[in-house]
Amino acid sequence: MAKFTIAFVSLLAASASAFTAPHQHAIRSSSSLMMTAESGARDPIKVGVIGCGRIGIVHLGAINKAPGVVPVIVSNPTVSKAEDAAKKFGVPKYTSDAMEVITDPEVEAVWICSPSQFHADQIKACAANGKHVFCEKPIATDLAETVEAINACNEAGVKLMIGLQRRFDANFLRVKQAIEEKEVGDTIIIKTCSRDPAPPPYEYVKGGGGIFNDMAVHDLDMTRFLAGSDPIEILAVGSCHIDKSIQDLPGSEAFDTASCIVRYPGGVNAMVDVCRQSSYGYDQRAEVLGTKGMIATDNVYPNTAKIYRNDFTGNADMPYDFFLSRYFEAYVTETEAFCKSLVDDTPVPCTGMDGLVALTMSLAADKSAAEGRWVKPSEIIQQVYCESPDSCSLLANSDVFPENFKPVGDIKDLSKLIVPKKEKSEVSFMDKFKSLIGV
Amino acid sequence: MAKFTIAFVSLLAASASAFTAPHQHAIRSSSSLMMTAESGARDPIKVGVIGCGRIGIVHLGAINKAPGVVPVIVSNPTVSKAEDAAKKFGVPKYTSDAMEVITDPEVEAVWICSPSQFHADQIKACAANGKHVFCEKPIATDLAETVEAINACNEAGVKLMIGLQRRFDANFLRVKQAIEEKEVGDTIIIKTCSRDPAPPPYEYVKGGGGIFNDMAVHDLDMTRFLAGSDPIEILAVGSCHIDKSIQDLPGSEAFDTASCIVRYPGGVNAMVDVCRQSSYGYDQRAEVLGTKGMIATDNVYPNTAKIYRNDFTGNADMPYDFFLSRYFEAYVTETEAFCKSLVDDTPVPCTGMDGLVALTMSLAADKSAAEGRWVKPSEIIQQVYCESPDSCSLLANSDVFPENFKPVGDIKDLSKLIVPKKEKSEVSFMDKFKSLIGV
Amino acid sequence: MAKFTIAFVSLLAASASAFTAPHQHAIRSSSSLMMTAESGARDPIKVGVIGCGRIGIVHLGAINKAPGVVPVIVSNPTVSKAEDAAKKFGVPKYTSDAMEVITDPEVEAVWICSPSQFHADQIKACAANGKHVFCEKPIATDLAETVEAINACNEAGVKLMIGLQRRFDANFLRVKQAIEEKEVGDTIIIKTCSRDPAPPPYEYVKGGGGIFNDMAVHDLDMTRFLAGSDPIEILAVGSCHIDKSIQDLPGSEAFDTASCIVRYPGGVNAMVDVCRQSSYGYDQRAEVLGTKGMIATDNVYPNTAKIYRNDFTGNADMPYDFFLSRYFEAYVTETEAFCKSLVDDTPVPCTGMDGLVALTMSLAADKSAAEGRWVKPSEIIQQVYCESPDSCSLLANSDVFPENFKPVGDIKDLSKLIVPKKEKSEVSFMDKFKSLIGV
Amino acid sequence: MAKFTIAFVSLLAASASAFTAPHQHAIRSSSSLMMTAESGARDPIKVGVIGCGRIGIVHLGAINKAPGVVPVIVSNPTVSKAEDAAKKFGVPKYTSDAMEVITDPEVEAVWICSPSQFHADQIKACAANGKHVFCEKPIATDLAETVEAINACNEAGVKLMIGLQRRFDANFLRVKQAIEEKEVGDTIIIKTCSRDPAPPPYEYVKGGGGIFNDMAVHDLDMTRFLAGSDPIEILAVGSCHIDKSIQDLPGSEAFDTASCIVRYPGGVNAMVDVCRQSSYGYDQRAEVLGTKGMIATDNVYPNTAKIYRNDFTGNADMPYDFFLSRYFEAYVTETEAFCKSLVDDTPVPCTGMDGLVALTMSLAADKSAAEGRWVKPSEIIQQVYCESPDSCSLLANSDVFPENFKPVGDIKDLSKLIVPKKEKSEVSFMDKFKSLIGV
Repeated sequence: MAKFTIAFVSLLAASASAFTAPHQHAIRSSSSLMMTAESGARDPIKVGVIGCGRIGIVHLGAINKAPGVVPVIVSNPTVSKAEDAAKKFGVPKYTSDAMEVITDPEVEAVWICSPSQFHADQIKACAANGKHVFCEKPIATDLAETVEAINACNEAGVKLMIGLQRRFDANFLRVKQAIEEKEVGDTIIIKTCSRDPAPPPYEYVKGGGGIFNDMAVHDLDMTRFLAGSDPIEILAVGSCHIDKSIQDLPGSEAFDTASCIVRYPGGVNAMVDVCRQSSYGYDQRAEVLGTKGMIATDNVYPNTAKIYRNDFTGNADMPYDFFLSRYFEAYVTETEAFCKSLVDDTPVPCTGMDGLVALTMSLAADKSAAEGRWVKPSEIIQQVYCESPDSCSLLANSDVFPENFKPVGDIKDLSKLIVPKKEKSEVSFMDKFKSLIGV
Repeated sequence: MAKFTIAFVSLLAASASAFTAPHQHAIRSSSSLMMTAESGARDPIKVGVIGCGRIGIVHLGAINKAPGVVPVIVSNPTVSKAEDAAKKFGVPKYTSDAMEVITDPEVEAVWICSPSQFHADQIKACAANGKHVFCEKPIATDLAETVEAINACNEAGVKLMIGLQRRFDANFLRVKQAIEEKEVGDTIIIKTCSRDPAPPPYEYVKGGGGIFNDMAVHDLDMTRFLAGSDPIEILAVGSCHIDKSIQDLPGSEAFDTASCIVRYPGGVNAMVDVCRQSSYGYDQRAEVLGTKGMIATDNVYPNTAKIYRNDFTGNADMPYDFFLSRYFEAYVTETEAFCKSLVDDTPVPCTGMDGLVALTMSLAADKSAAEGRWVKPSEIIQQVYCESPDSCSLLANSDVFPENFKPVGDIKDLSKLIVPKKEKSEVSFMDKFKSLIGV
Repeated sequence: MAKFTIAFVSLLAASASAFTAPHQHAIRSSSSLMMTAESGARDPIKVGVIGCGRIGIVHLGAINKAPGVVPVIVSNPTVSKAEDAAKKFGVPKYTSDAMEVITDPEVEAVWICSPSQFHADQIKACAANGKHVFCEKPIATDLAETVEAINACNEAGVKLMIGLQRRFDANFLRVKQAIEEKEVGDTIIIKTCSRDPAPPPYEYVKGGGGIFNDMAVHDLDMTRFLAGSDPIEILAVGSCHIDKSIQDLPGSEAFDTASCIVRYPGGVNAMVDVCRQSSYGYDQRAEVLGTKGMIATDNVYPNTAKIYRNDFTGNADMPYDFFLSRYFEAYVTETEAFCKSLVDDTPVPCTGMDGLVALTMSLAADKSAAEGRWVKPSEIIQQVYCESPDSCSLLANSDVFPENFKPVGDIKDLSKLIVPKKEKSEVSFMDKFKSLIGV
Repeated sequence: MAKFTIAFVSLLAASASAFTAPHQHAIRSSSSLMMTAESGARDPIKVGVIGCGRIGIVHLGAINKAPGVVPVIVSNPTVSKAEDAAKKFGVPKYTSDAMEVITDPEVEAVWICSPSQFHADQIKACAANGKHVFCEKPIATDLAETVEAINACNEAGVKLMIGLQRRFDANFLRVKQAIEEKEVGDTIIIKTCSRDPAPPPYEYVKGGGGIFNDMAVHDLDMTRFLAGSDPIEILAVGSCHIDKSIQDLPGSEAFDTASCIVRYPGGVNAMVDVCRQSSYGYDQRAEVLGTKGMIATDNVYPNTAKIYRNDFTGNADMPYDFFLSRYFEAYVTETEAFCKSLVDDTPVPCTGMDGLVALTMSLAADKSAAEGRWVKPSEIIQQVYCESPDSCSLLANSDVFPENFKPVGDIKDLSKLIVPKKEKSEVSFMDKFKSLIGV
């Protein structure tokens, strides 16, 4: 019988083996990794995708490019979109009902690409059905639901990966690598900036939770990823420059521009600025100053050509114009990484806790901008009261605290809220996988 | 019945649809093209690969990444290499015998990745068996055999695509696009340089045909691709700087460095320089000056990060270090383009004639360097005497010319040598393909 | 008699006349300005320089390069340094006594390059002697003395220019120009960073007033220069990473790294980060995002050469390594601008008020870092109580406010402290100058 | 008595002392050199300038910026231009008669900036009057006159410096330095390109001697400067693309574009391409590949700012647009270097021989393009027959060779033509200079 060989290569192992000479440390794209990958029978992981909107299609594209994983069912409330997606990516089944994806016996893992307000319930349903979950951020729209959803997965022993695709971008990864290998010494300051090509419509902004929750959260998470530790406190300020119609929206929904400073242990500060309009494409850069030097990334262009004419000299083409193009390779790498953690039964690289902390940071930034002062994440987290792992609620300052309320004073104390992950039922995924493929 | 939809998108159509704003004309990588590609039943094209050495593995990797094409059999004289490759890429059959690939009834098209001396015979065998051919350059090691191989395919009505992967690189393509769209006006001068990271071993150089045939041929072809016309005459000069052991080899095998000027119609000159060692990775750049400006490409780096330290400030990583990494995406695009021409039954983008002219150019450069003078391609071509389309030989200057010898005086007169392409048998590929998939 | 023609060209006029095509708006270095400058008899402005330390030598070098101005006397307490400087720059007189410079009848204007604690008294002495003053920042070490020194010059009708050389750097000027001509639309956010190549010795830091006063003040001033308005409030935070020996110093003297956000009218925020060590040369960059795009500057390298080798690919040389080299041209331009304001009798481009506001900003940043909150400049300024224009003092919060105390609530209200500039005696500088040269 | 100290610093010494760390080898601009220069009484060298056209004004500007040298008289046939120049640069005397400059007793050295056809006679007149000569290239319009002019200076013992300002540009100098210090190993190939912003008028081209003599000569000289040896043979080809009106002019006057390959000893080849129009400013770049890497320079921009907008991302300003701006600093450095050789009585850095060889190279390139073959410089030089050092003529191939004709077979044999330099009269310049300043 054919030797069972898994089709994935450890991202870390691959990059480590590439480290042969100084300054040659490129973390290569998945393309070349696959060239050295061994694959045997290659029985793919079968997955379902909920939501065939823009981000759902991105993930279907990434699943299509990633080896060893195939979509078997997609859903969308407007079923024609599900049908179109199914055709486009050769998916055999489609449906209007997300529950049909979640309960499909073929499906090992579910990609949740529905609108944010459905995330928590769908995660819980996946957990109840023993399906692993890849969920686009956010896990839920409030902290209590986020905690419940994480706990549901942990109780059920299913994996929950949160989509933080920037962590898989070759450029940000290169900065992370430089930090870990101390190529620029010890980190002194981290700077990121993030600018969308054009502001979203008024309808998107209204009720979207504000610029910190719907936009800066990715940057705040990136500073935490690069800092390698949890934030101490956050200072934020916002303003409105582009679409003045949003100025009357409440809180940080009125901002299209914001600046944050995040204090990390060891005197490391991160400076973040975001804007909903860059005019010149999608602007996503990072810079880290260390005790021995600096590493900085630039935006990504589709080719290296430069044109020189009598009216300008510069890049022949504009940079990638939005996250779909800029991060497409990152989505593929993210998909591969999640699949690898399923096959190897190892922890996912972006956990529910990562999503929870990111949400906490964006809420703290929001509060800071509103109150004009430094805010600690603990101020946010300690509002959450969990009667049981799957029954949490938010306490207002005016509430009478429940008898058994243990406020979280620090991100490290989140274990008061989050239950540890259990083994998934009696049969491990790996065993089940192996039995499926007849090893 | 499901609508029959082909899985490939026209490269030109895709780039055309992207042309919405000045300087946004990026020809995007295949990744994103595929995101908009429609695919229905996706019955793949079944192909065989002859040769599992370095370049064979590259093509298997490219085939693996390209949608709608699957390898069904691979061969290699050392069969363990074929077996390894089969395992790695999940190919069901492997063999030590190239003819088993060529005669396999499942196989639609054959990738010839064997050593150059086998190319011509294997092409003819493919033609005899009605298989389309993708052949790594060169078609053959001499002009007469090249003409025979092309004629064999044309007589049999099978497609012959020659591997000129640089033409599919996003950077060179961008230069080609700028020329075609006159972004820099009318072409005045074309410059390319090509430098390998390290010289090949003595054994590779010896008998390899010299630097013009085994290396500069790609650059000479690129100048023709960019010029969009056939060369008038060529001037070349070579020298030896790196590995002095080759200095005693005959002719241009003694060179590791060479410069060429190629004269094209309209006063357009191309300047080419090649070297077998760059020290700093694979150096492959092009520059075109036009009446309205210049376009120039740079080498490709795995990410945009720059590092600044007390001993240097520059790119965090070295550029891609050889053609395997630099051109991997180009190999995939090339594969897609060949498959598309099979499915659509359209002419291949790199024809046998392209291979023939490239070889002619490198032979002319070789002669120029040897004789220290301008050499016209016609001086090379008119040595070929074809008694019949598949029986050609090279005439020495001292030969008594055969009675029916019509010397070719210009590249345009190659029709004296090359027979027109016939239809492939009575059944077109497209019909056969459709019948196979039951449309 | 020869027509009297002044040897200086208006910087603004020069740059305006260069504005002929989009993106051709370079503000050229002084070199080329002088090529079009008309000069007749060229009687130079005679100046004296107090202080022959590092910065004094820089200014002597700049005076040497600037046309139409000659040093006639230099002073330094260690007279051998004055003698050396005199020799080096061909200055006829030298002395150990600053007052000999200030009272020298030949001297029109005095360059104050002494240690900061002497600035205020020397400025007042210059005013008393009717000499114009160019003073390296700061004007004085506290706000009360600063106000007194400014008032002394205004009362005497002499010009006082404060040295803010970055405002004359071609790169920062280009950003300023882009803002003024709205090349990137209306300003949304301003970012500057400033990193010294290596930390100063402990002795320099101790008692130096802290990182905001001795370093970030230049960046805070630059944000105000670019914003084109006065700041609303400032948030700062600092930390220590490099030389841990300073950690025990009081207040912001313990910081070698700091971040600030400055809020300007119209929702414009400026983000500043400074560090006492960059490892890779002097790092001085600015970036402005506007509603129509972004402008960003890079550091300056001595040439454009790039080197590519097997261990790195990057700039052949390191960037200029400190302010002496980076800003040498800016010092020359600054000198020319001051001389021009003397000759034309026009306002100096960097006024005492600019110095006063810069100091106020750095004090506010200092207070913000100490108290962990946003601080308004008015909190700083309203400590100053002036009994008369030349008799000011600082009030502590605990002080009983004097009867006639008018606290300044806003930078705009500084007129409560600063007297308007009077005409210099009965004879204008211009008349005197003309009479001197016999026109 | 004050110690006599000369105001110039050795360029080489300065750069050598800067060589403290790898990749820090910047050859700094003259500005900073002067900061460390010692100057005592600073009696300037008094010079005269012949010709107040464009290039004369450039040299007056450079003289104005260079320390220790003052113009005392200028001439121009249209005397109003001489008067304007005198006013602009504060020159006390002006005249319409070049001989008044040459015979002025105050003048030590003469700058010849007149049209080319006057150069030889004016050089000879300078020699006859014991004046040192700085002459814009070319020395003369034909080889025989060039030899005569050089010999006249050598016989008279006066220095003759030829203006090859590119050799003093910081960027080209950096490449030269890299070669000399073997930073990229041993030279393999040299590439330069040179493109003027716009073609000159028809009148300039007609009779101008063709593109090799009036344009490519600078690049040919640069390849020799970088190669550090004399050329073996030259291959050139030209064409016309821009202004088709010149197509009917004779020989290489009909070209606006040309490519050359120059063969140097050791297998080093230089590739040169020139064009009379770049559209995007003045394009002057060099690239050298060596056995250990590559060094390449870029064009020069007035600042580092980059602008990013919705229609382009690139340099905020265009590169310097012509030699006046691009090379202004180089002209100043050149002036300083010539003055230094006068003061130190050392050989000039660009000799008459350099000018002679450059002219020989451009004539060889011209012949190569006309005859479509490699041409050796000796083919050009051996046409010159000198009856005596100051009586030379050109022999046509058809001429009967004079009895004592010793044809030059190699550039090394030029001593057959050129007499060795004599000491200038009995009094050395240095003694005379010292006596003048009373040391």
